[in-house]
Amino acid sequence: MENNIIEPRTLAGFMELLPSEQILFNQMKDTIEGVYKSYGFLPLDTPIIELSEILLAKAGGETEKQIYRFTKGDNDLSLRFDLTVPLAKYVAKNYGNLSFPFRRYQIGKVYRGEKPQKGRYREFYQCDIDVIGDGELDISNDAELLNVIYTIFTKLGFNDFTIRINNRKILNGLFEEIGQKENAEEILRIIDKIEKIGKEAVIKEFKELGVSENAINKINSFIEITGTTEEKLAKLETIAQNETYQSGINELKEVIKKVGLFGVPQQNYEIDLTIARGLDYYTGTVCETFLNKYKELGSVCSGGRYENLAGNYTNKKLPGVGVSIGLSRLFYKLNELGLINASQKSISKLLIIPMAENDTILKKATELANNLRALNINTEVYLSNKKLKAKMKYADKLEIPYIIVIGEDEINTKTIKIKNMATGEEQEAELDAAIVAKKIEL
Amino acid sequence: MENNIIEPRTLAGFMELLPSEQILFNQMKDTIEGVYKSYGFLPLDTPIIELSEILLAKAGGETEKQIYRFTKGDNDLSLRFDLTVPLAKYVAKNYGNLSFPFRRYQIGKVYRGEKPQKGRYREFYQCDIDVIGDGELDISNDAELLNVIYTIFTKLGFNDFTIRINNRKILNGLFEEIGQKENAEEILRIIDKIEKIGKEAVIKEFKELGVSENAINKINSFIEITGTTEEKLAKLETIAQNETYQSGINELKEVIKKVGLFGVPQQNYEIDLTIARGLDYYTGTVCETFLNKYKELGSVCSGGRYENLAGNYTNKKLPGVGVSIGLSRLFYKLNELGLINASQKSISKLLIIPMAENDTILKKATELANNLRALNINTEVYLSNKKLKAKMKYADKLEIPYIIVIGEDEINTKTIKIKNMATGEEQEAELDAAIVAKKIEL
Repeated sequence: MENNIIEPRTLAGFMELLPSEQILFNQMKDTIEGVYKSYGFLPLDTPIIELSEILLAKAGGETEKQIYRFTKGDNDLSLRFDLTVPLAKYVAKNYGNLSFPFRRYQIGKVYRGEKPQKGRYREFYQCDIDVIGDGELDISNDAELLNVIYTIFTKLGFNDFTIRINNRKILNGLFEEIGQKENAEEILRIIDKIEKIGKEAVIKEFKELGVSENAINKINSFIEITGTTEEKLAKLETIAQNETYQSGINELKEVIKKVGLFGVPQQNYEIDLTIARGLDYYTGTVCETFLNKYKELGSVCSGGRYENLAGNYTNKKLPGVGVSIGLSRLFYKLNELGLINASQKSISKLLIIPMAENDTILKKATELANNLRALNINTEVYLSNKKLKAKMKYADKLEIPYIIVIGEDEINTKTIKIKNMATGEEQEAELDAAIVAKKIEL
Repeated sequence: MENNIIEPRTLAGFMELLPSEQILFNQMKDTIEGVYKSYGFLPLDTPIIELSEILLAKAGGETEKQIYRFTKGDNDLSLRFDLTVPLAKYVAKNYGNLSFPFRRYQIGKVYRGEKPQKGRYREFYQCDIDVIGDGELDISNDAELLNVIYTIFTKLGFNDFTIRINNRKILNGLFEEIGQKENAEEILRIIDKIEKIGKEAVIKEFKELGVSENAINKINSFIEITGTTEEKLAKLETIAQNETYQSGINELKEVIKKVGLFGVPQQNYEIDLTIARGLDYYTGTVCETFLNKYKELGSVCSGGRYENLAGNYTNKKLPGVGVSIGLSRLFYKLNELGLINASQKSISKLLIIPMAENDTILKKATELANNLRALNINTEVYLSNKKLKAKMKYADKLEIPYIIVIGEDEINTKTIKIKNMATGEEQEAELDAAIVAKKIEL
């Protein structure tokens, strides 16, 4: 009707992939989901829109600025900016209907109106697991989640990665010891930057904050602790003695021991006393995961333990531990580095090409296709009335692994040729789904 | 910090399921996705937020009123209200990078600010497939999509359903014949209501619209055509002769013939001349799917053919055909009718219970669990330090099919007991994942 063409475009900061990239993205997502399920985590799917009052109960600062918030009718609404706040609401709301420890996974889009830049998205997938206890939650669960992280990155094809583990109580105890409790957040923020800006710059920032020489030395000797896990733990003991600090060390020891017991190889985890996740709500175990050859990626999976998940929505004490993978960013970065490769252009294993558009041929072609699908082989039938060359070009362009052309001859002789499109090789087979399936599944 | 408890609640019209319901919902979603993939449809995942200018290029009326629209920074944004408009944008934008016919599926949430009522959601899942041609698209594709619908509902466990098929050109040709072209939309809207309000009321509405007695008779004899498919087609021929009408009949004949050729049993499809999908943009084949014993559900899967998908975004002619399942509503209705049953409370097949929290036991328990997971058996380890009774209660409540208790004895004798929680039966087995897997997979 109108010739007014609107330029088709997608908002900056919103990922929209080509089919081959989407296939790869979904494979990664399915791998993560598969591992979560293999550990028995229950699926959850909460709304993307919630009342602002609910979502922003605890938020503030950056989060509040970045949020997508709007009114519809009388409702003040927001798009979720993570999957943890909706989980807190969900557990408080459905407390009586859940079995504890409540173990759930959720994979879904979240929204943050950050300044878009390469690899930073405004709409992105988070893949979360959390275990929520009713009143208490054994620290073994912290160790198990680290085991889940190990399984995922191994399944994604990585070997050289390290899960770095710390405990917030150790940091809090340290700050208590040096009389810097009120500066804790700020000090954590500064420590977090040490890999980026270096030791000198960190010390300078401590001084500007008004931290005493003595305290700075203590912090320094703390973050400079090196050695094997055992050596680190031994040195840690000497730095402070207060109860928070000691309880942090005990928890860390326990987690470290159990991560090993649960089967994570020693080279895939270590104590890192600079891991703080300062801006988050963690109160015990904290962890980050790094691909050792690509540390510039930042942490690819982070999380930790929190004393009380849903304090804004219930008086019940619900401690939990969880980890999260920011899949959209991870996908973008791995793709950019060439560590993953969107090479699969089709999800069909086989394309059946009817030689001509006549009833007998179409019937046989679709019958074979239906039977192959029933045998779990993704099968496409080429249904446009084009020249054979155009049909072959389609298979070529999508790199469909196998093709079968069906014409009168094939139907009369009950024999077809299965062409391997990568090698060009052809093998003869009976016109029978089970036989075809066997040949192409080899 | 604060004792201000905010009541945890979810917005009206937003589905949020308990875990057992979510498991069932996901199974349905996975079935649909599995069928889409088995036909070789490519996955797509477009943003939920788009520029309003893009999303509302064609919209108007009801759609525009229902939309979630807001500004963020300088951008006028909207949440997608279907998956077709984003597809049109996507195909226009990525035209050069796609292979045609472009076959894609997309399963995702869409948003419509309707008055919430039972089974009507403001956030709901649509499961779409479309085939888009470049310039032209063979009508065989229309028939294939009906075959996909057949496969899905069969796989979902239904047998007694009918795909009702019509062609918009027949309707348009009829209106042309009776000089009611300009009232076409309104007449279609009235015909659509015939099952609800009855023939008399429909005739009354036609009169109010100013349709002549003669024309009403013609419409009546048209929608009253009955008989077998062949009889219907024969009677149709007699009612009008213009080109649009005849071309509609020819297309309908072709689709009906091919649906049969492609393997859909005769009892699962029929011609229904009252199917119009009046408010949509269809131009040829249209279809709706009804569960015959539960017609009050309305159509559970609808779609059709459109001349030109992306006319708002490109001058390229891109005809297509697609069908869509409104999964959230379908799930709600089937659940309400008791046709599906959220009976599975856990996705774990097996719970391993360490008798005590000591290192040797935990190590063996998690080792067995890891090995079972590697054999694709979803396995959970109970990790809270409770009494055995509390641990068993957890397995009971979640109805986990099997449990294995591991203590010192089991480790020393290398023998465990696998308890079937439904029957109470116990079978002895070696403490070995492959053996355990075999026993519980029987």
